Amino acid sequence: VTTKVTRRPIVGIIGASQAAEPVLDIAEEVGAAIARQGWHLITGGGGGVMRAASLGFSSAKGAAGGVVIGLLPSDGQDFANEFVEIAIPTGMGIARNAIVARASQALVAVGGCAGTLSEIAFGWQLNRPIVAMSASGGWAAKLAGTVIDERSSLPIFEADTVSRAMTFLKDALS
Amino acid sequence: VTTKVTRRPIVGIIGASQAAEPVLDIAEEVGAAIARQGWHLITGGGGGVMRAASLGFSSAKGAAGGVVIGLLPSDGQDFANEFVEIAIPTGMGIARNAIVARASQALVAVGGCAGTLSEIAFGWQLNRPIVAMSASGGWAAKLAGTVIDERSSLPIFEADTVSRAMTFLKDALS
Amino acid sequence: VTTKVTRRPIVGIIGASQAAEPVLDIAEEVGAAIARQGWHLITGGGGGVMRAASLGFSSAKGAAGGVVIGLLPSDGQDFANEFVEIAIPTGMGIARNAIVARASQALVAVGGCAGTLSEIAFGWQLNRPIVAMSASGGWAAKLAGTVIDERSSLPIFEADTVSRAMTFLKDALS
Amino acid sequence: VTTKVTRRPIVGIIGASQAAEPVLDIAEEVGAAIARQGWHLITGGGGGVMRAASLGFSSAKGAAGGVVIGLLPSDGQDFANEFVEIAIPTGMGIARNAIVARASQALVAVGGCAGTLSEIAFGWQLNRPIVAMSASGGWAAKLAGTVIDERSSLPIFEADTVSRAMTFLKDALS
Repeated sequence: VTTKVTRRPIVGIIGASQAAEPVLDIAEEVGAAIARQGWHLITGGGGGVMRAASLGFSSAKGAAGGVVIGLLPSDGQDFANEFVEIAIPTGMGIARNAIVARASQALVAVGGCAGTLSEIAFGWQLNRPIVAMSASGGWAAKLAGTVIDERSSLPIFEADTVSRAMTFLKDALS
Repeated sequence: VTTKVTRRPIVGIIGASQAAEPVLDIAEEVGAAIARQGWHLITGGGGGVMRAASLGFSSAKGAAGGVVIGLLPSDGQDFANEFVEIAIPTGMGIARNAIVARASQALVAVGGCAGTLSEIAFGWQLNRPIVAMSASGGWAAKLAGTVIDERSSLPIFEADTVSRAMTFLKDALS
Repeated sequence: VTTKVTRRPIVGIIGASQAAEPVLDIAEEVGAAIARQGWHLITGGGGGVMRAASLGFSSAKGAAGGVVIGLLPSDGQDFANEFVEIAIPTGMGIARNAIVARASQALVAVGGCAGTLSEIAFGWQLNRPIVAMSASGGWAAKLAGTVIDERSSLPIFEADTVSRAMTFLKDALS
Repeated sequence: VTTKVTRRPIVGIIGASQAAEPVLDIAEEVGAAIARQGWHLITGGGGGVMRAASLGFSSAKGAAGGVVIGLLPSDGQDFANEFVEIAIPTGMGIARNAIVARASQALVAVGGCAGTLSEIAFGWQLNRPIVAMSASGGWAAKLAGTVIDERSSLPIFEADTVSRAMTFLKDALS
């Protein structure tokens, strides 16, 4: 008898493809914390924050854990960083940001430039719970604790520590 | 003998599907000004700012003018407002925002909620000249005169009048 | 008083980016016939059949006619052939074939390789009236007069002349 | 020290959302065989062949095995059949077929209507190794052993048994 499989939560970590060491450290920590929950991690599959988050996830993941999914903008898998386990080349360029937001059941923004901003905007439109790491700079810091528009009165959650981010996510995904 | 056809500039007007009268008035004025240049107008094809811009364009367009293109998120043409001449249903939902930004050779933001924010972010990533109508509120007002990230040092152009916006666009598209 | 604008029918011509002279001639003739109806033409914007159809359209279009729209797979407008009046770079690669099928209210297949086959398949799924030019070879000839699946019992219309194709299209779009 | 993770091959099984029992049986068998290799399975995530393949995979997968990925056309996860472990709603409708083809490093066609035909066409364009189960009817049977166009002289591999399909896939993915 085959039974329904487990569908673990998918959390997206979004951030820039180039970032300073302290920002990467935060991404790595968040990735590791997501792995410890047994959740899946989704990113855009590239460098910088995407790679650091995936590295952190890989370091911490246990036997029964989730996997690292990379939703690539590229035509092939070469774009993916070396910690992506499931590389999905979309061939859609930056339009893949819309899929990153949609496929994530919750989003964590770490730093972030224009691409991250588009993902935060899409996440907001799709009513995804969003955490912004306030110590990571970039658009995460700028938008932490604010509302993007009047669609919702619940602001982007401002997390100054990974532990606070995880408390929010556990609540949001339960 | 057939010769190369004229490919008129395509300008995108981006803004929310619901907006207050003064914001709609600005959108209408910008749409009309674009029509007078003989350019094409592209929008997301829906209501609010998208409709007002298209209405303005329709009112002002002359015999040899451009057309109003609506890049719809929907599966069919029904979504399009009544001033869209070329309705292109993408069937891609909000991911069509990436195409709106890419297909526009310059963008004018009027007011704007989360969807507009995603288009501004994409336009910035794609290095499109962007004008923000500073009197229109929303994300246009918030981002006017700022840089989205360090990819470029040229800020989003802050226009307090339609005339200033047009001067910028004429220069950017020449 | 502003009234609703005219939304002319959009017909897609689909075919390969490289084709033999007789196939290109058919595409050119179909393009010209569509222009004479005052309809818009949509293609994938590239070479071969797409270019020949656009050339034919351009040669025949009158003052008040439709326009040639190119839905490009590319990131920029450079991909477009010189007869495309409205170039829409989707940045989505071959996934743009789905939009070509969706944006066309009827499709005419001329010759065709794998890309055309995907567009015929999508057009069928979306219940678009499809004409296949039976003298043009390729997938158009193979599928003319057949059904793709049991979703519909109305086969792809087999047209051995441009005139027959136009009779079908006029009926389908009325 | 963190090392590069394992990136298992991703095989796509494509087929209709409704199919007769014998067709579903083939899909289930192929899904199970893919699981036994430790590969990932990708499908469009829906019913019929997609569900049967996923069910087969789930029944056979071992502790260290791959996972079932569903690339959904829908806005949310509800579309996914109950054997999808990683549900990725693309929100793109049938345009997601292009991503199914691209994300699969090899494709197995089982039966199939218009949607499957579009995926075979895309897979061919992207130079993916394609197996067609010749006993499954539909487009798989029609195209088994044929070439889609002249881009390649290597025909779609015709497999009359799951065992022959697996021999081909193991070779193609090694």
